[in-house]
Amino acid sequence: MSVIEQAQRARVAAARLAVASRKEKDAALRALADALEARAAEVLAANAQDVAAGRAAGMSDALVDRLSLTEARIRGMAGGLRQVAGLPDPVGEVLRGYTLPNGLELRQIRVPMGVVGIVYEARPNVTADAAGLCLKSGNAVLLRGSGTAAHSNAAIVAVLREALAASGLPADAVQLVDASTRESVKELMRARGLVDVLIPRGGAGLIRSVVEESSVPVIETGIGNCHVYVDAAADLPTALAILLNAKTHRPSVCNAAESVLVHADVADEFLALALPALRDAGVTVHGDARTVRAGQAVGVPVEEANDDDYAAEYLSLDLSAAVVESLDAAVAHIGRYGSGHTEAIVTGSQAAAREFVARVDAAAVMVNASTRFTDGEEFGFGAEIGISTQKLHARGPMGLPELTSSKYVVTGDGQIRL
Amino acid sequence: MSVIEQAQRARVAAARLAVASRKEKDAALRALADALEARAAEVLAANAQDVAAGRAAGMSDALVDRLSLTEARIRGMAGGLRQVAGLPDPVGEVLRGYTLPNGLELRQIRVPMGVVGIVYEARPNVTADAAGLCLKSGNAVLLRGSGTAAHSNAAIVAVLREALAASGLPADAVQLVDASTRESVKELMRARGLVDVLIPRGGAGLIRSVVEESSVPVIETGIGNCHVYVDAAADLPTALAILLNAKTHRPSVCNAAESVLVHADVADEFLALALPALRDAGVTVHGDARTVRAGQAVGVPVEEANDDDYAAEYLSLDLSAAVVESLDAAVAHIGRYGSGHTEAIVTGSQAAAREFVARVDAAAVMVNASTRFTDGEEFGFGAEIGISTQKLHARGPMGLPELTSSKYVVTGDGQIRL
Repeated sequence: MSVIEQAQRARVAAARLAVASRKEKDAALRALADALEARAAEVLAANAQDVAAGRAAGMSDALVDRLSLTEARIRGMAGGLRQVAGLPDPVGEVLRGYTLPNGLELRQIRVPMGVVGIVYEARPNVTADAAGLCLKSGNAVLLRGSGTAAHSNAAIVAVLREALAASGLPADAVQLVDASTRESVKELMRARGLVDVLIPRGGAGLIRSVVEESSVPVIETGIGNCHVYVDAAADLPTALAILLNAKTHRPSVCNAAESVLVHADVADEFLALALPALRDAGVTVHGDARTVRAGQAVGVPVEEANDDDYAAEYLSLDLSAAVVESLDAAVAHIGRYGSGHTEAIVTGSQAAAREFVARVDAAAVMVNASTRFTDGEEFGFGAEIGISTQKLHARGPMGLPELTSSKYVVTGDGQIRL
Repeated sequence: MSVIEQAQRARVAAARLAVASRKEKDAALRALADALEARAAEVLAANAQDVAAGRAAGMSDALVDRLSLTEARIRGMAGGLRQVAGLPDPVGEVLRGYTLPNGLELRQIRVPMGVVGIVYEARPNVTADAAGLCLKSGNAVLLRGSGTAAHSNAAIVAVLREALAASGLPADAVQLVDASTRESVKELMRARGLVDVLIPRGGAGLIRSVVEESSVPVIETGIGNCHVYVDAAADLPTALAILLNAKTHRPSVCNAAESVLVHADVADEFLALALPALRDAGVTVHGDARTVRAGQAVGVPVEEANDDDYAAEYLSLDLSAAVVESLDAAVAHIGRYGSGHTEAIVTGSQAAAREFVARVDAAAVMVNASTRFTDGEEFGFGAEIGISTQKLHARGPMGLPELTSSKYVVTGDGQIRL
């Protein structure tokens, strides 16, 4: 079946989902979870094929780990679906409502988007997560996963579709798009009018190509060149704890810190503290001349940084570093190199915090907290479909409300415009 | 100056506007209004050049009217700017806020988009309106008007920029983009990273080309193939009043009705009432076989409708008409031909209204009211930058909040992720 035919079927399914009650959707989500657990053996067998093919093709251990499913991971997927069933239904929420002078009653109501396309890489658990979030928010979903996870995704989607149909909702609410060619992504990107939004999740190359080529509206996700700015008024042990956490807690994710900026007034003292601690944590620092000198003073080697370092999303135990003369210079540096994801300031000064928050242009600004907190679960959303780094529609972690649009409902008793 | 250079200057201006207080912005808006009135003669002289050129090129009277400025229209533009000054500032509004279990205080705050690009046709008053709305919402704006209004727009923007600078805000917050070539629109569409959102306002061709070619996020506006559905349970005189208003009050705008659907149970009675009234109002009806027969019965000629008629946004005193067997058939017809702008039902049945509202997929659904009410002023927004017919970010009339994004501000005292 072509992607266009799949999208047409998805639209039909979406019309049904749009009027599904919360009770129906939650029952279906629980049925999906039960089915995944009951048929874990099928899914694991399919996954074993993908893993064997991946190993044969020389896939790295890290990628094989991301690709691999286990009984526990399948229980995790099922648990995620049950958790989504427990979240409030965003559909039907009244966002605005009042009566106009002419007696018209105006309400703005959350409604599903319709058909959501998700293009993602590697991890097959995204398949169940995304399907669950879309179902709960009343959307049909077209899932275009990675070719390397094709058997796993096919098995998961087969289970989900059968369980959907058994619970009285359309199986076409969840469809897997052919992952064997790039052409299917292109078809998704051209399906304006059939697909309401496209969410790319994965590496920078994937996201850039979708953003640039799609005529379907796109929500850009997840590139994070996040900074920790250590202000002149920072408590230095707090700053160090935050920096170490932001850099080393999970270096491969988008909310990990990639760069530290240190105010000149505290640079010597902070770097003398931080450089040995970073080294002990296995971090390689790429710094400006002053950071290199500070490294020499404490016997810690610091690589000389260039422009590429400051622009890099390392996703590894590397960290760029620069000493800045002022908060203003820190804001300018972030404006130049940041990706608009998460920026943190460590300071005891209310004025500095206020200025940094107002002037830094990012989805999330942390004051005296680790960049690692930019996350749907941590923010209390209960689930997350990705982290938007664009300004249109959604910015920052996206939960269920971000998968909805709205509709104005205006009720009168014969009003005409005069 | 190239569009890219203009966009870079706009970004610098936007950084300043993002931290401008409401007091500064409102004072500037009032200064802009005063300047427009004080320098009306300059603007009128420039407009006279455009009008003369338009007439020489054989522009239609309707277009010449849209292009023409008068003292009264300039006062109207100034009045619009003062009205925007009086509206609440959307920037800084707290959209969500709570304290997380670990003590982090999370707030989601409205912030400006940054740089807004607007591509529009003909009417030079859009120049001042759009500049005012963008300024109030803290955005820099790149205005790409019509070549036919180039002198008028240049004069208006010159006045606005001088007044901005005099009030201490950057003149580059309002810039006019070269309207002499299509290339400038293409440059705007490729300025991802510099321009945060592009809003095309104008004809279907303009909007389609921007939507399809832009890598900058776009908000699609204003195509309206709006239906009035006369339900079996409609009060027929009410239905007729709404239909006449929706079709004839201002046929050239996007919220005018283009099609009427009549439930078979009341078709004969309603059409016997409506067809003569529509004829008397100068409306040409394009109907299905049953409507044609109903016309013959009352001596009113009805053109035979084809698929193109049902798909048409006439923007004239033409109306397509069809008799439908059920509310279900009406919803299906609207799903097939509607543009997702505004759909109206006239009914006395609560159940019918509820079903129509739930199932029709449009920016606005009217119950017993004219489609003409889909409008920022009518909805009580105080101003409008356009009417979005897409589902991402904004749907329906867009006021000041729709010109903003948001930012999460998370404040702690040293929290790290465990």
